[in-house]
Amino acid sequence: MKTIQIGLLGLGTVGSGVLQMIQENQAKVAKVTGCELKVKRVLVRHPENYQAVADQVALTSDVDELLNDDDLQIIVELMGGIHPAQEYIEAALKQHKNVVTANKDLIAVAGPQLSQLAQANHCDLMYEASVAGGIPILRTIANSFAADEITAVKGIVNGTTNYILTQMTQQHWSYAQALSKAQELGFAESDPTNDVTGKDAAYKMVILSQFAFGTDVQTSDFKVTGIDQLQAFDVAKAQDFGYVIKLIGLAQVANGGVFVEVAPVLVAQSHPLAAVQNENNAVMVTGKAVGDTLFYGPGAGGLPTANSVLSDITTVTKNLVLQTNGNQFNNYHQHYVPAAPTDVKYPYYLSLTMPDIPGQMLQLTQIMTDLGASFSEIAQEPASDGETAHVVIITHTMDEQQLHAFQARIEQSPTLTLQAAYKVLN
Amino acid sequence: MKTIQIGLLGLGTVGSGVLQMIQENQAKVAKVTGCELKVKRVLVRHPENYQAVADQVALTSDVDELLNDDDLQIIVELMGGIHPAQEYIEAALKQHKNVVTANKDLIAVAGPQLSQLAQANHCDLMYEASVAGGIPILRTIANSFAADEITAVKGIVNGTTNYILTQMTQQHWSYAQALSKAQELGFAESDPTNDVTGKDAAYKMVILSQFAFGTDVQTSDFKVTGIDQLQAFDVAKAQDFGYVIKLIGLAQVANGGVFVEVAPVLVAQSHPLAAVQNENNAVMVTGKAVGDTLFYGPGAGGLPTANSVLSDITTVTKNLVLQTNGNQFNNYHQHYVPAAPTDVKYPYYLSLTMPDIPGQMLQLTQIMTDLGASFSEIAQEPASDGETAHVVIITHTMDEQQLHAFQARIEQSPTLTLQAAYKVLN
Repeated sequence: MKTIQIGLLGLGTVGSGVLQMIQENQAKVAKVTGCELKVKRVLVRHPENYQAVADQVALTSDVDELLNDDDLQIIVELMGGIHPAQEYIEAALKQHKNVVTANKDLIAVAGPQLSQLAQANHCDLMYEASVAGGIPILRTIANSFAADEITAVKGIVNGTTNYILTQMTQQHWSYAQALSKAQELGFAESDPTNDVTGKDAAYKMVILSQFAFGTDVQTSDFKVTGIDQLQAFDVAKAQDFGYVIKLIGLAQVANGGVFVEVAPVLVAQSHPLAAVQNENNAVMVTGKAVGDTLFYGPGAGGLPTANSVLSDITTVTKNLVLQTNGNQFNNYHQHYVPAAPTDVKYPYYLSLTMPDIPGQMLQLTQIMTDLGASFSEIAQEPASDGETAHVVIITHTMDEQQLHAFQARIEQSPTLTLQAAYKVLN
Repeated sequence: MKTIQIGLLGLGTVGSGVLQMIQENQAKVAKVTGCELKVKRVLVRHPENYQAVADQVALTSDVDELLNDDDLQIIVELMGGIHPAQEYIEAALKQHKNVVTANKDLIAVAGPQLSQLAQANHCDLMYEASVAGGIPILRTIANSFAADEITAVKGIVNGTTNYILTQMTQQHWSYAQALSKAQELGFAESDPTNDVTGKDAAYKMVILSQFAFGTDVQTSDFKVTGIDQLQAFDVAKAQDFGYVIKLIGLAQVANGGVFVEVAPVLVAQSHPLAAVQNENNAVMVTGKAVGDTLFYGPGAGGLPTANSVLSDITTVTKNLVLQTNGNQFNNYHQHYVPAAPTDVKYPYYLSLTMPDIPGQMLQLTQIMTDLGASFSEIAQEPASDGETAHVVIITHTMDEQQLHAFQARIEQSPTLTLQAAYKVLN
């Protein structure tokens, strides 16, 4: 039986998972691909720290030992970060080595150019693990929606924030309390900035948009709002109205353009995304023909992510057998046209504070009426200080332009303050 | 640009959907595959009834006009039923034509031998649409779990019964009422036997077991219980305990063997499968590495099913471009070893009736104790006639052998009657 030799860059949680899975599932992989997989060399910064695996693989801190090893047909990059991961991947592709990576930051920033480089060198570049950990979402979109027109992708694509939001919802904790608990349990890093500001989710939406719509949208093209300003008050009010707040990555077609956003969204409790708890992820893909489909699973973790890496490795291996490497993982490309703000329409949850004096609701109603917008549900409660009232509203459908005009009008008001404005998903 | 010519067998709901999707999504398919798709000929019984499409395709009632047309590279079988679909597919494969089918009955019965015939003729045989309509579950298992060990597949794979069960749960209707409503709305056929007896779900579990475990299990190898004997009483009691009753297709590995069953199961309300409503389907795939993943979407309908057919057609087309046809859709094969009854363990919901006289609960408790089984929750209510008590129990985990012994002991009891015994999924 033919042996496919692999080089690993990095041996952290996911790298160790890959090593373990290749050893444990050798027999099944051989049945499916007709080949044996073998990790030959591993790049680590300090080989002396990995003596436990030194008898199975050659450890080195010199990347050239992998790049110049002609036996290696697949390089698996699991170091993370843009540099030097990008340079190593480019060098591997130029040496005609197929590359598998889990690096969402890099793929979001340089995916299309790396894919072109891979194709030019007749190599595969696959990155299933870069989005939603163990959920096989990219390959599914590429293979199973190839003949359908995808109209929307809505995802819970960051496990840390979903864990924090689940705790805020279930335990009625503040953001700070929930973050602290998540850090204690290892669901959030000591510096959680990339997760809680929505940056990590934004990278994933860039990649999902490439697969769903073919468009090379960048994170700088769309608005990203994290959960770090989210108030326990709004989580509770949302629940009163029958919603849970989730950090949603939204990418949709609107009148020929594409709209992308990452933001807290009120999701109706009956919606399949509302049931996604803790560190799990889920992506809802809506096709014109197929309707709503949902893909759910663990969004992170060593073994789930390793499984996605292995699905790439087995696909590359099948291609090696068939000698069909060099086709792009995603070969759907279209010019990115941003959607017009008037074409993106949602109901909104608006949270406002105002002095508890006559005329404030009239002022608010007047602004909404001027903009052609209207209320669906409204709840007012006097604040504990007896001077400031808190009003929350679910509006009927408004477009982005109406929302911006509303925000500007409230900004001008001497008495009304907009505390939060979140989209509503029914 | 190269044109791939297609012949359709059958032009019902799914066939019309395929025709429509090929026309509407031509541009996207061309971007992804580099080829244009064209349906050239369609087999229908009465060509004169399809004059609306007569200007687009050649209609014929003679299958040989398709089988002998050398231009056709893909035959799409959407007639359903075993005969003559099987003979037509065999003839097409022998003419070296690739075949796509949505025919679950045929694939469940003859899938492996047809796959071998396809391989021997260097042709593809794909059947994504045969399981769970619009959900791309087969290709996902084949591609994305190739290096993981799947330990269980649990599915709601029949839309008709899920619609009936949703109505029984939400409206508190009897089975007969809910079936009648489903028929009125077109969610159930006038002869619903295949759906409500679990036969349709059993076919799908055969195919899912082939992909998940590589085993060629047959419907005659496992127990199939439908929903046609399900009582509104048990649906209501399950709700009281915090469960919903779903028709679950279950296939799992237990101590090296494989256990398959189709039966009503109590699913905890917090379980992702509990939220699958109406005619939707969902399949939960549990991998040793990846953990629980769930794939949700429309289980039937012309366009969703057509989308799965199209995903097969585009895959065959890519293979035609790469000249890699002839690899089996599922190339994981293992010998089927049935699981030992003592290795399959679940809690059970038991519903019993007994005369409302002293000593009955003692008798029941004695039987459970003798078998080493025990109660987790119990509820007794006097029946309306004042003479018969109805006792429902959720047990702690029992194995299949204990359950069978329990059923036998109750059978021997002159006073106790077992009305229902359903597995419980937490």
